[in-house]
Amino acid sequence: MKSFFISFEGPDGAGKSTVLKQVMAQITPKLQTQYLVTREPGGSVIAEKIRKIILDPNNSKMAAKTEALLYAASRSQHMAEVIIPALKAGKLVVSDRFVDSSLAYQGAGRNLGIKEIKQINDFATSGIEPNLTIFLDIDPAVGLARIQKQRPNGEDRLEQEKLAFHKRVYGGYQKIKQLYPDRIKIVNANQPFGQVVADCIKIIENRLPEKFLKD
Amino acid sequence: MKSFFISFEGPDGAGKSTVLKQVMAQITPKLQTQYLVTREPGGSVIAEKIRKIILDPNNSKMAAKTEALLYAASRSQHMAEVIIPALKAGKLVVSDRFVDSSLAYQGAGRNLGIKEIKQINDFATSGIEPNLTIFLDIDPAVGLARIQKQRPNGEDRLEQEKLAFHKRVYGGYQKIKQLYPDRIKIVNANQPFGQVVADCIKIIENRLPEKFLKD
Repeated sequence: MKSFFISFEGPDGAGKSTVLKQVMAQITPKLQTQYLVTREPGGSVIAEKIRKIILDPNNSKMAAKTEALLYAASRSQHMAEVIIPALKAGKLVVSDRFVDSSLAYQGAGRNLGIKEIKQINDFATSGIEPNLTIFLDIDPAVGLARIQKQRPNGEDRLEQEKLAFHKRVYGGYQKIKQLYPDRIKIVNANQPFGQVVADCIKIIENRLPEKFLKD
Repeated sequence: MKSFFISFEGPDGAGKSTVLKQVMAQITPKLQTQYLVTREPGGSVIAEKIRKIILDPNNSKMAAKTEALLYAASRSQHMAEVIIPALKAGKLVVSDRFVDSSLAYQGAGRNLGIKEIKQINDFATSGIEPNLTIFLDIDPAVGLARIQKQRPNGEDRLEQEKLAFHKRVYGGYQKIKQLYPDRIKIVNANQPFGQVVADCIKIIENRLPEKFLKD
């Protein structure tokens, strides 16, 4: 059955989760098929246990390659339990972050190489890629300042990284956009919230196969 | 500094841990350099947290690829914290299991492909391989029967697998031996214990560079 897979990407503080929520609220009334909105670890108990290890600020000795392999492991489990069954059922799947995040954060941010991280993740995902990726574009310094205001309970191990790391992540996203110009569409996230949402909806409606939309 | 890296491999129930312990007890008086005996997770707190997830019998929904990536993640951390520093210090490192176990258990046992698992593990180990691998050879049915007698508190998630799985693992080891005939030396583990140990010591003494042995 024909499915459609959308991912939302962007630096920390781009507003992905909030934008995604509002986009789905506005687009849902127009959809006629089942859809699944997810984010890693996506309700998989095993994937969640894995991510607890990754994000725990106590695990400061974690090697960069360990971090990359754990993200791939968590993703593999999320794929097996959540995403693949939904795609097989012909659903629209929308994910808050996917492989591009690993390419940007571990490949570029941790200097492990985008190609190397892609290979690990191709194994984890069996090569399944989103049909459309919306990149919420924001200057990493602006995004980081937003995050620091929004986390009263402290940041996780990756958010705690300094600006230089987040700049490398942003540079990684620039390279990934060049690698996949057809799949990745850019939305300026430094606009009023309503405009960001409207831009996303316009892109999705242009790309979504007919079967997903009501007449 | 010149180091030397030995791994012990074999099916479950081959007696690896017991043999390795006795081999080291007998060989230690002849050694003049520092050595490190280790097994994954090798005292790394992070690697141990990862292996708890892998081996927990409650995690029965774990996808095969997740398992493979978690083993690679645990190994990457063990490498970074334990093995690489010891090799850099010119030590003799002896490990109870290493990458070949993943090639056999996940590559062959889980049918994920030896080549695919090798690629993931090359990333985890930065391509570092043992100089010598001792394969304790035992019929998988004999090994499995030994294990079932020896685990009063129940087996872990992989030991619980049925004979068909362990036969695939054994078949995997046969292929790996053909891939690395110079590195992997075979010891018949279905001999009296003292003979198994003596065979291992003979192989090690033949291969160990002079600097590690007393005059």
